[in-house]
Amino acid sequence: MNKEEFSLNPWEVVGEVNYERLVKEFGIKLLASKLPKQFQDNLLFRRGIIFAHRDFERILECVEKKKKFVMLTGLMPTGRFHIGHAIIAKQMIFYQSLGAKVYIAVADIEAYNARSQSLEESKKIAFEEYISNYLALGLKKENCEIYFQSNRSKNSEKSNAYYRLQNLLARHATFNEFKAVYGEISPGKMISSLLQASDILHSQLKEFEGKIPVVVPVGIDQDPHLRLARDLSQRIKDFDFIQVSSTYNKFIPGLKGGKMSSSDPTSFISLADSSKEVETKIKKYAFSGGRDTLEEHRKLGGNPDIDVSFQYLRFLFEEDDKVLQKIYNDYKSGKMLTSELKGIAIEKINFFLKEHQKKKEQARSKIKDFI
Amino acid sequence: MNKEEFSLNPWEVVGEVNYERLVKEFGIKLLASKLPKQFQDNLLFRRGIIFAHRDFERILECVEKKKKFVMLTGLMPTGRFHIGHAIIAKQMIFYQSLGAKVYIAVADIEAYNARSQSLEESKKIAFEEYISNYLALGLKKENCEIYFQSNRSKNSEKSNAYYRLQNLLARHATFNEFKAVYGEISPGKMISSLLQASDILHSQLKEFEGKIPVVVPVGIDQDPHLRLARDLSQRIKDFDFIQVSSTYNKFIPGLKGGKMSSSDPTSFISLADSSKEVETKIKKYAFSGGRDTLEEHRKLGGNPDIDVSFQYLRFLFEEDDKVLQKIYNDYKSGKMLTSELKGIAIEKINFFLKEHQKKKEQARSKIKDFI
Repeated sequence: MNKEEFSLNPWEVVGEVNYERLVKEFGIKLLASKLPKQFQDNLLFRRGIIFAHRDFERILECVEKKKKFVMLTGLMPTGRFHIGHAIIAKQMIFYQSLGAKVYIAVADIEAYNARSQSLEESKKIAFEEYISNYLALGLKKENCEIYFQSNRSKNSEKSNAYYRLQNLLARHATFNEFKAVYGEISPGKMISSLLQASDILHSQLKEFEGKIPVVVPVGIDQDPHLRLARDLSQRIKDFDFIQVSSTYNKFIPGLKGGKMSSSDPTSFISLADSSKEVETKIKKYAFSGGRDTLEEHRKLGGNPDIDVSFQYLRFLFEEDDKVLQKIYNDYKSGKMLTSELKGIAIEKINFFLKEHQKKKEQARSKIKDFI
Repeated sequence: MNKEEFSLNPWEVVGEVNYERLVKEFGIKLLASKLPKQFQDNLLFRRGIIFAHRDFERILECVEKKKKFVMLTGLMPTGRFHIGHAIIAKQMIFYQSLGAKVYIAVADIEAYNARSQSLEESKKIAFEEYISNYLALGLKKENCEIYFQSNRSKNSEKSNAYYRLQNLLARHATFNEFKAVYGEISPGKMISSLLQASDILHSQLKEFEGKIPVVVPVGIDQDPHLRLARDLSQRIKDFDFIQVSSTYNKFIPGLKGGKMSSSDPTSFISLADSSKEVETKIKKYAFSGGRDTLEEHRKLGGNPDIDVSFQYLRFLFEEDDKVLQKIYNDYKSGKMLTSELKGIAIEKINFFLKEHQKKKEQARSKIKDFI
């Protein structure tokens, strides 16, 4: 597929992504290369995986001056929790460590309206797949509010305020706007989008945190949601919203090189995969940047930039930049073979998963405290 | 305007209404001529002002067998409370006297989305114009729940359930359906319609009354809302709703013979009008069924069926059928002149308003108990 041939909307990502073009088209900004130390210490920022933003200066200022801010994210409670989801989870935990109040919306209304999934099924998946993994990855109870869209709060003032905002935002949107953002829409998708705009904005209501900076870290495909919420927030004069900030991360590639798809287990590593499954998946499916023959590889070297095993190390599993750089160099020079690179990835991933799965078992008992 | 030339949707009523044609077109049923005694005792039923229904048998059965049921109605908190509004208010009080639990939705979200009115303004008008008049007309605190769409309940389970239903209903509706029902729609109108469907259906949720028959008394122009709520209620399998019942009342004519318009004070009698205002309005504006000259009137007689003063007596102000029949006959025969008929109407209306306005003053202090 030609590099120019890709389409991007919140419902699907096709083809190879040209991030530069997206930055231009969406009117977002590239992140400064020199961020404050706390951000440099985070590999997602340091390695340019989180690469662009809107109004992120406001959040940097909060961190610098130790002012309060909110991080909001949502989870779609469908499919398995895989290493793609871990990219957002790591950001929740990172912002929590910086002092942010973390809001996590379980999009069970969207799952009902856009994917015909029952609320009961969403609840089960949210707990078993998502929230238990967040806890195991290090999410703390303090400064954290996880809620279901269908059941916002046990505090009626909060619930009323959240749904009221959804209803009031509708006046300030047009059908053309929804269409421009999403392509084909339905009443169910439209009302879910308005609820998502309330997810993004409601923490600033007096019933919640009051006027406060909010950052929403997303994959670049989610920007249309952000644009809608940002536009509506400035039109609705009944409230005095601070414009929402956002950051954009690159996609972690699927095993076979395309997008990770929750419905195709051969496209991802799940955080519940066994050592054996990881080994098989990496060996059998992981797209390789190596050459066709050993001789060619030794002579011409491999391409770590398109090698999925290398990218997994870069996105998540190799914290040490020097070690990562050496693997990069050795693979590119032909000194390291694909089988060796895959061996390192398998070892690193399985080392992580073994610990993680233990923590996840321990996390089960703590889940109830979170809702 | 020709009798066939009229259009009817929830937003406007134009021309003279052909009720027979509407019954056929909307697929509603005419009410049985012989209703149980409680209904015959109510002049709105007895005189055919409430003339048609859907599934009203279910409500008659509840009354007969003394089973619980709900009456739901909404109020649009705009303009002045006039005698047109009193038709619905009288039905609230009637159903309350029959043992129904009365739900009254203040449509402040709809006023915001369809009429750009602030929630504060809606709250003020709802209290000062509507709710105080309901109380003065006899609405009791017991078995009555008045709520604002923007602030459903102080009980979070109830609030969450009400807005959840609105959000879930969206999946079961199509844009074409909204268009067919309302003509041109906007996101604001659409979300308000879904909230109104939740108004109509939510009393049957387990967080409220549980599965229970519900009757919604409306003017015939409101039937599209009922159709939408009825259709959605049967499609959404997550709940087991009893199909909603409804009754339809004829329009009380505006002073000048057309529709009463809250924005045109010469089209209605407000329940806050002074004796002098009533006298002026009836004498100056009330459309008359009399002849052009006294001589002609004595000879040919007047037409009480199109005479607005007579209709006001019939709809609201003359309880006694025998007295009303005598006025009808005398006017039709030419024995009673228009000035005499208008005099009776003025006297009857002012007698009623004098008492009512006293009661309304007393009601002010009780309003807070209702919300």
